[in-house]
Amino acid sequence: MGQAHGVFERWQLELLEECRVARLGTIASDGRPRLVPVCYAVSGGTVVIAVDEKPKRGGRLARLRDIARDPRVTLLVDRYEDDWTRLAWVRIEGRATVLERGDEHPAALEALRARYPQYREMGLEALPLIALTPERVVSWRWGGDAGT
Amino acid sequence: MGQAHGVFERWQLELLEECRVARLGTIASDGRPRLVPVCYAVSGGTVVIAVDEKPKRGGRLARLRDIARDPRVTLLVDRYEDDWTRLAWVRIEGRATVLERGDEHPAALEALRARYPQYREMGLEALPLIALTPERVVSWRWGGDAGT
Repeated sequence: MGQAHGVFERWQLELLEECRVARLGTIASDGRPRLVPVCYAVSGGTVVIAVDEKPKRGGRLARLRDIARDPRVTLLVDRYEDDWTRLAWVRIEGRATVLERGDEHPAALEALRARYPQYREMGLEALPLIALTPERVVSWRWGGDAGT
Repeated sequence: MGQAHGVFERWQLELLEECRVARLGTIASDGRPRLVPVCYAVSGGTVVIAVDEKPKRGGRLARLRDIARDPRVTLLVDRYEDDWTRLAWVRIEGRATVLERGDEHPAALEALRARYPQYREMGLEALPLIALTPERVVSWRWGGDAGT
């Protein structure tokens, strides 16, 4: 995770490690944000996002069509607890690339399987993955910086 | 919650009740989705969202400026568990209105305080709230409909 250390502060990386789910925002065709919960892993300087569902009627999932139209995405990782002094979030804005079977796909899938045992049993080799290259990281912690 | 029953299915309402945090997506000035974790409550046919932070440098929080520019927002409520048969999410697309002190503000604040004891100790009367009027609800459950 060498590169990632240049992008994230240590506590941000720890939060990314601790949280099991993030929320991905893509830009729908009408400009509205489309949000979905996603599983993810930090791999090198990128954040790898699983696409483990198949669309209902063939074709591509809407989030992948969004990315093809506009690769700007936002990923939010946050911790909620009833003890609000524990609240924290990291928002990663960046460019998304869809990885199909190929050079980068195996390493990305491996990073996801290292974090999620569930994926080890699933045949994801033929499904695309999303690689997010961070461009801007905004974060917030209770008692720390003000949010936006 | 009379009206809400017309908008949400029973299991969706139960998920909204069960989850303690949601993620709000607004449209930033450059068109990118801005995501923040939010506390919320269903109140009548609307979803009320707390704004409990003050901006760092005076002025309005970025999410409120986004809404003033374009009121189309997306709220995602989801349940993550390591037992993935429990995964579920509800995505609410709608129009956001910012409630300042006034007729609707007290009822909205009351709904939030009923769900979050933390807010009973905080003086939120002078802070705005966000009211989300649902226009479209999309949902997904493990083993149910395909996601988008």
